[in-house]
Amino acid sequence: MEMESSKAGQVIRCRAAVAWEAGKPLVIEEVEVAPPQAMEVRIKILFTALCHTDVYFWEAKGQTPVFPRIFGHEAGGIVESVGDGVTDLKPGDHVLPVFTGECKECAHCKSEESNMCDLLRINTDRGVMIGDGQSRFSINGKPIYHFVGTSTFSEYTVVHVGCVAKINPAAPLDKVCVLSCGISTGLGAALNVAKPVKGSSVAVFGLGAVGLAAAEGARIAGASRIIGVDINPKRFNEAKQFGVSEFVNPKDYDKPVQEVIVEMTDGGVDRSIECTGNVDAMISAFECVHDGWGVAVLVGVAHKDAVFRTHPLNLLNERTLKGTFFGNYKPRTDLPAVVEKYMNKEIELEKFITHEVKFSEINKAFEFMLKGDSLRCIIHMDG
Amino acid sequence: MEMESSKAGQVIRCRAAVAWEAGKPLVIEEVEVAPPQAMEVRIKILFTALCHTDVYFWEAKGQTPVFPRIFGHEAGGIVESVGDGVTDLKPGDHVLPVFTGECKECAHCKSEESNMCDLLRINTDRGVMIGDGQSRFSINGKPIYHFVGTSTFSEYTVVHVGCVAKINPAAPLDKVCVLSCGISTGLGAALNVAKPVKGSSVAVFGLGAVGLAAAEGARIAGASRIIGVDINPKRFNEAKQFGVSEFVNPKDYDKPVQEVIVEMTDGGVDRSIECTGNVDAMISAFECVHDGWGVAVLVGVAHKDAVFRTHPLNLLNERTLKGTFFGNYKPRTDLPAVVEKYMNKEIELEKFITHEVKFSEINKAFEFMLKGDSLRCIIHMDG
Repeated sequence: MEMESSKAGQVIRCRAAVAWEAGKPLVIEEVEVAPPQAMEVRIKILFTALCHTDVYFWEAKGQTPVFPRIFGHEAGGIVESVGDGVTDLKPGDHVLPVFTGECKECAHCKSEESNMCDLLRINTDRGVMIGDGQSRFSINGKPIYHFVGTSTFSEYTVVHVGCVAKINPAAPLDKVCVLSCGISTGLGAALNVAKPVKGSSVAVFGLGAVGLAAAEGARIAGASRIIGVDINPKRFNEAKQFGVSEFVNPKDYDKPVQEVIVEMTDGGVDRSIECTGNVDAMISAFECVHDGWGVAVLVGVAHKDAVFRTHPLNLLNERTLKGTFFGNYKPRTDLPAVVEKYMNKEIELEKFITHEVKFSEINKAFEFMLKGDSLRCIIHMDG
Repeated sequence: MEMESSKAGQVIRCRAAVAWEAGKPLVIEEVEVAPPQAMEVRIKILFTALCHTDVYFWEAKGQTPVFPRIFGHEAGGIVESVGDGVTDLKPGDHVLPVFTGECKECAHCKSEESNMCDLLRINTDRGVMIGDGQSRFSINGKPIYHFVGTSTFSEYTVVHVGCVAKINPAAPLDKVCVLSCGISTGLGAALNVAKPVKGSSVAVFGLGAVGLAAAEGARIAGASRIIGVDINPKRFNEAKQFGVSEFVNPKDYDKPVQEVIVEMTDGGVDRSIECTGNVDAMISAFECVHDGWGVAVLVGVAHKDAVFRTHPLNLLNERTLKGTFFGNYKPRTDLPAVVEKYMNKEIELEKFITHEVKFSEINKAFEFMLKGDSLRCIIHMDG
C-alpha cells in the first residue's frame, strides 16, 4: 500500500473502462483521478462485478444518456486516501462502495425503518460528485462522468464517505464485492422485509442474481417451500442450489400464474418476492400470497409508465404489499454484518459467481449478461 | 335470569325487528327463536347498535337481497342457553356477538397474524346457521333469515359459539356493545396494524365511527399529529374530541389530497388509515405516507368493481400497504381485552354514542345514520 499512499493529495493516472456512447463497447483508457475532496474517499478497486443496472444505463434506452461515463457499482477495494473531514475511514481499510448512501444525519438515516438517505439516495442522472458538482475523472482535462457515485470500472475511483462500507479486512474481496448491490438487495428483501418464518412457503419471481439471492435468504430463514417463477426454463436447474424446490414457468399455463401458485399451495404462499421489475409479475406476486398473513415484497424496478393495479379486496383480506430498496440495508451500518454472514458460512457467495474476466476483457462481462448466461461475472482489475 | 334459563331447549317467542323488503322500514314482529343446536348459543340481547353494514344490506343496492331478514350485528347480551358441545360459555355469561368468528381450529385461527377464520369468516349472503343450513327464526313456521350470523335486532338470537366473545360481567353492555364491530375495527386498525409510534403523524380518511375509532387508537398510541380527512365539514368539530388535530377537506383543494398532506407534513405522514371504502381515498391514503417508513392501512370495504392503482415506485420507495379486517382482532381471544381497555379508561366509548332509542323506535336509528347525524345510536331492547 506504500506506493498508493504516497499519491495522497495528487492526481492518479490509471486505467478505466470508459463508455463513450450509449450501447457501444467500453474502451480501456488512461484517466486522471483527482484527489478526494471533503467527505470523499479515493479507493483502489481490486474487483468489480457487472449488474443489470449498469447495462440499462449503458444502453440508455429510456434512461437519461450521460456520456462519456465510467459505469460500475458492485465492487470491493482498499482506501487509498481520504479527504477532509473523513474520520471513519483511513488508507488501507477494506471497503465496499455502494450506489446509495447513509449520511447518518437525515430523517431516513435516523429512522430504524428506512435506508433511503435524503442526501445520498441513488441518483442515476447525476454524473458528478455532490460536494462540488464536479467530476473527479478526466482525460486530457475533459471530464468523464460518474455513475451512481461509485464508477468502479476504474482502477481508482472517488466516492462520498457516506457510500462506503468498511468491512472485515480478512474477507476475500473477489467474493464479497457482489454484496455491494444485487446480492444484498435480494438477500435483504427476504431477511429484512419478507421475513419468512421457519417452515413457510415463499415464491420468488425472477431467478436472476437478485431473485436467487432472495431464495438464498428464504433458505437461510428456514422456508420449507421455495417456489421459483421464471419464463426462462434455463434458470430452473441452476436455482436448485439456492434452495428453490419447485418451479413454475408462467408460459406453461393458460391461467394467471397467481392462480397456479394459489392452487399449488392451498390458498397461497406465505411470502412472495418480486425481482423482475415487470409490473404484471408484481401483480402476480401480490395476488399469490395467502389471505390473512401473506406478505408480498417488490424489489424489481418498474418501467416509469407502469401501473400496479389490484382489487382492494385483495388487500382488505389482510395481505401486505411492500417495496424494498437495497434490501432495506443501511450501507455503512449493515453491510459489514452481511460480510460477516459470509465469513461465518451462513451465506454462500461462490454460487453466484459464474464467470471471471480480466479488466481488459470487461466487454465480455456485458456479453455474458446480455445472453443471460451469467449470474455474476467478477472483473479482476489487475488483469 | 331464572325465567330465561327455564326456556332452555324450548322455542322462545319474543320481539324482533324484521326487514320484510329491501329499504322498507323494519317491522317489530313476534318471532319464534328455536333453541341453540350443537355449538350454538342463544343470547338475550340487551343493547344493540346500528352500523353502516346493516344499512347497506338492508338497502341491498348491489348486495344480494336476502329477505325477510333480521339485521343487527353490534350488540351486547347475556347467554340464555347453550347447545351441545358448548363448553366455553354458560347461561348468564355476558357476551358480545360478532359478525365474524374464531373456530380456533383452522390455519387462520392458529396463525398469530390472521383473524380471518376459514369456518366462520363473515358471509353476508348466508341467511342460515352453518351447522344445519336452517334459520332459527320463524313466524308461523315461515323462516326469517339471519344476517352475518348475529341478527341482533331481536330480543333473543342464536349465534355460533365461535362468534361470541365472553366479556367482563361488570362491563356496561350499553357502552361496550359498540365494540362488537365498528369501534374495534377502527381501533384495531390503528393499534394492531398501523401501529404509529409515539410522536408520529397519522392521517385518517373518513371521520365516521370507524375513522374516529382509528383516530382514538392513534391518540392512545401517542401520535402527535392526527390529520382528519373528510368531504363532510360537519365532521370536523366532532373529531377534535377523538384526538384529530388538523383537518383536510379534499374539496377545498384543486390538487389531489395526497399532495396536500405531503406538503403539510414535509414528505408525508408516518401512517394513514382509510375508513371510507372509496377507492380514490384508498389511493390517496397510500400515496400520502412518507417514503422509507410510511404504512397505509385500508379498512373501508370497496365497491366490487373498484381497482386500486398506483405507480410501483410508490411501493419501491419503501412504503407499505396493508388491509385489515375487524382491526385484526380475533373475536374470542382479543375482544375481552378491548373491553378491559374501556374498563381501565384507556379508551373512551361514550363519545361514540350520539343517540339512544327504544327498540320500538329502531327505524329512527336508520334515519339518524342516513342523515349522517349519528356516530352510534344505541337501541335499548327493553323499550
